[in-house]
Amino acid sequence: MQPADKLIMHGLVVTMDDQLSLIDDGAVAIVGAKIVAAGASGSLSGFIGPATEIIDATGQLVMPGLINTHTHAADALFRGLVDDLALEPWLERLWVAERKFLRPDTVQFGAQLAQAEMIRSGTTTALDMFWFPEVSAQVAQAAGFRLMTGPVYFDLAEPDKIPVEQRTARGREFLQQYQHDPLITPCVTPHSTYTVSPQYLQEAQALADEFGVLLTTHASETAKEVTTVSERYGQSPPRHLDALGMLTERTVLAHCVHLRGDEIELLAQRQTVVAHCPMSNLKLGSGIAPLPQMRQAGVQTTLGTDGPVSSNDLDMWAAMRLAAVLHKGVQQNPTLLSAQEVVKMVTCDAAIALGLGDKIGSLAAGKEADIILIDLSRPHLVPRYDVYSHLIYAVGRDDVATALIRGRTVMQQRQLLTIDEASAIAAVQELAQQIAQ
Amino acid sequence: MQPADKLIMHGLVVTMDDQLSLIDDGAVAIVGAKIVAAGASGSLSGFIGPATEIIDATGQLVMPGLINTHTHAADALFRGLVDDLALEPWLERLWVAERKFLRPDTVQFGAQLAQAEMIRSGTTTALDMFWFPEVSAQVAQAAGFRLMTGPVYFDLAEPDKIPVEQRTARGREFLQQYQHDPLITPCVTPHSTYTVSPQYLQEAQALADEFGVLLTTHASETAKEVTTVSERYGQSPPRHLDALGMLTERTVLAHCVHLRGDEIELLAQRQTVVAHCPMSNLKLGSGIAPLPQMRQAGVQTTLGTDGPVSSNDLDMWAAMRLAAVLHKGVQQNPTLLSAQEVVKMVTCDAAIALGLGDKIGSLAAGKEADIILIDLSRPHLVPRYDVYSHLIYAVGRDDVATALIRGRTVMQQRQLLTIDEASAIAAVQELAQQIAQ
Repeated sequence: MQPADKLIMHGLVVTMDDQLSLIDDGAVAIVGAKIVAAGASGSLSGFIGPATEIIDATGQLVMPGLINTHTHAADALFRGLVDDLALEPWLERLWVAERKFLRPDTVQFGAQLAQAEMIRSGTTTALDMFWFPEVSAQVAQAAGFRLMTGPVYFDLAEPDKIPVEQRTARGREFLQQYQHDPLITPCVTPHSTYTVSPQYLQEAQALADEFGVLLTTHASETAKEVTTVSERYGQSPPRHLDALGMLTERTVLAHCVHLRGDEIELLAQRQTVVAHCPMSNLKLGSGIAPLPQMRQAGVQTTLGTDGPVSSNDLDMWAAMRLAAVLHKGVQQNPTLLSAQEVVKMVTCDAAIALGLGDKIGSLAAGKEADIILIDLSRPHLVPRYDVYSHLIYAVGRDDVATALIRGRTVMQQRQLLTIDEASAIAAVQELAQQIAQ
Repeated sequence: MQPADKLIMHGLVVTMDDQLSLIDDGAVAIVGAKIVAAGASGSLSGFIGPATEIIDATGQLVMPGLINTHTHAADALFRGLVDDLALEPWLERLWVAERKFLRPDTVQFGAQLAQAEMIRSGTTTALDMFWFPEVSAQVAQAAGFRLMTGPVYFDLAEPDKIPVEQRTARGREFLQQYQHDPLITPCVTPHSTYTVSPQYLQEAQALADEFGVLLTTHASETAKEVTTVSERYGQSPPRHLDALGMLTERTVLAHCVHLRGDEIELLAQRQTVVAHCPMSNLKLGSGIAPLPQMRQAGVQTTLGTDGPVSSNDLDMWAAMRLAAVLHKGVQQNPTLLSAQEVVKMVTCDAAIALGLGDKIGSLAAGKEADIILIDLSRPHLVPRYDVYSHLIYAVGRDDVATALIRGRTVMQQRQLLTIDEASAIAAVQELAQQIAQ
């Protein structure tokens, strides 16, 4: 038995494994990037070697890091710039700001700030659609943050000044660079059916197929989008994507607020993944996605925050709680979307949906060590009767004390270890003064 | 000019006064329990005397403490005990636990825990309906927490073993004791039209009238309640209450999820206050209250968390954000419920609604000093373009650093100064082990 590099001990371990095992006074042994064992603390003491770092999780809950399946993280630069507007004028104002202020150096600060916020709130993996993905990927490399991102497709060249006809060649470079990276999982991120013409949507899909990677895009976010796309192409966004061969089990559609029953069946049939983003959908007045119906039909569903311009933060706990309560209220049925189901949506289920099921999503031997520790001793977390209920209805972002990604401790007792938070904050605050003008 | 006892300086002061003044580099001077001045830091230096405590709010936002207009705070004992059930079976299970475990000593721990959580999250005033209100009032006295509470009416005698025919006499004692208290504002809290017979509802109203205090009750929370009450009394809960003379400008109705248009008009006409509790209403599957319609009609609307068994915490920031986004999404109109409106709902508007408009709700000379300081330097709060948007869509409970109530500092840099949090937590954890069995 090889001694562990790190041994988390004496926590309430919520494994999210196939049996949904809960281990009181549990331990997780880590060697390098990987979990080598999870079990009762007493049974794992054999992993203690002379150099083993013991992480005492007494009074803490230990679980897989959260997976955010839809965001535009570096939009943190514009958090709160345009609120209480409908999606279309909102997007127009945002795009003006993006065109004017997004450059590799500003995206770097935005990505640092966003990754700091995500780590602080227990998110260890994000599927990110944003300009200059190579910059966010570099920031994630340095931060030790697990990022899934890749080339954007957009018919207009701005703000990254890449003409659409050059996007595939540029994108291929990104995919080549990161295809074997242990931390950055490359993917392809065409914006939507209303901003990318069919030719380039097909190029995006071909590029994803060439590398066997995931493709993500927005679909059926607003009623207006559905009308626009239906008028332009004679069919709704999901049908249009399907006609282009873009609904596969390696496709993640963000939003899917306005779906007909037959479209839900189609997504289930194609095993396409939906990233439900309730905070953004409500705040922008887009509507309420038929999440229970999608789940009933067998669609793979996950959760996202959307970008911090719409949501306005990257708080997966808020997304989880909202997803759990919203549909109960809308359908006047409190038995919908149990707490346990929603925890699965952001851990084991999300990992499988992103094609990372062999790597992350649960605490089990062989998985990589993306782990968060949650402090259970604060007043709003006392008492505790059901652990899943607690995670959904009471735990919040600031209860996350410690976070590990691929075995590396990126936050310890609320101190970020891999991001210079203060300088990122200062840089963004300075830029924001220009943006505000 | 009398020297201030405390002078908060160099903060971004969000006064919530009649002009909604925002003061950059602002200060608030406090003498005893009261604010004597609010203005630019430079203009208030004359308040500095030899004994003045200077509270440096650099990098912080300074605003009135939040007002929670509906909760059952000490139900914190049962947080997460019964989730994902409809209101009626949920209430039945909760009532079994309440009957078995609620005694003055257990309510004391529950109230301490709840008040600790409320102070930590920036709530400085709560309108509380709970058994043994004298216990919660004593806890609040010690904690320096501003509590509005008073005698419960309920046809069944348990769990406080007071026969309903004795409730008025017992309630009168409570009102006499607290009628001139600076911190505890007594009120009368009959449970609902489906659990209190008309005779005792009228006694409750007569008692409230005798002392000129507020009355609060649940109304039209679920469709089933409306049906039950309509079948029993031939009219809906609001109409039934109105027939009993119970809809006045000193009435706070919690929930009001299921209202017809004519009932909304009636509430507006009577100047009756509604405490909107969206987290609880969604989670219990009760439905979605017509908040925009109520506001449009001129009903006084405020926000509550409801008790921690339904919500499952006492987080007003979650309630605020949910109220702001929910109705935008339901009505597909992102211009509804602006961020500024929602901040008013939990500060100046709530204070007026509770009859405390001369005391609290804004930072202005003559008001009592219920003030919270919010740390603005954390990643999820950077950058900042609009202060109200920030408060609703990004700030959370853990960003509250410091809290004062009636000029007394009850939390300083996240340390509670007036509640022995650790012993309350330990006591509740011990009790919870019995409850869980």
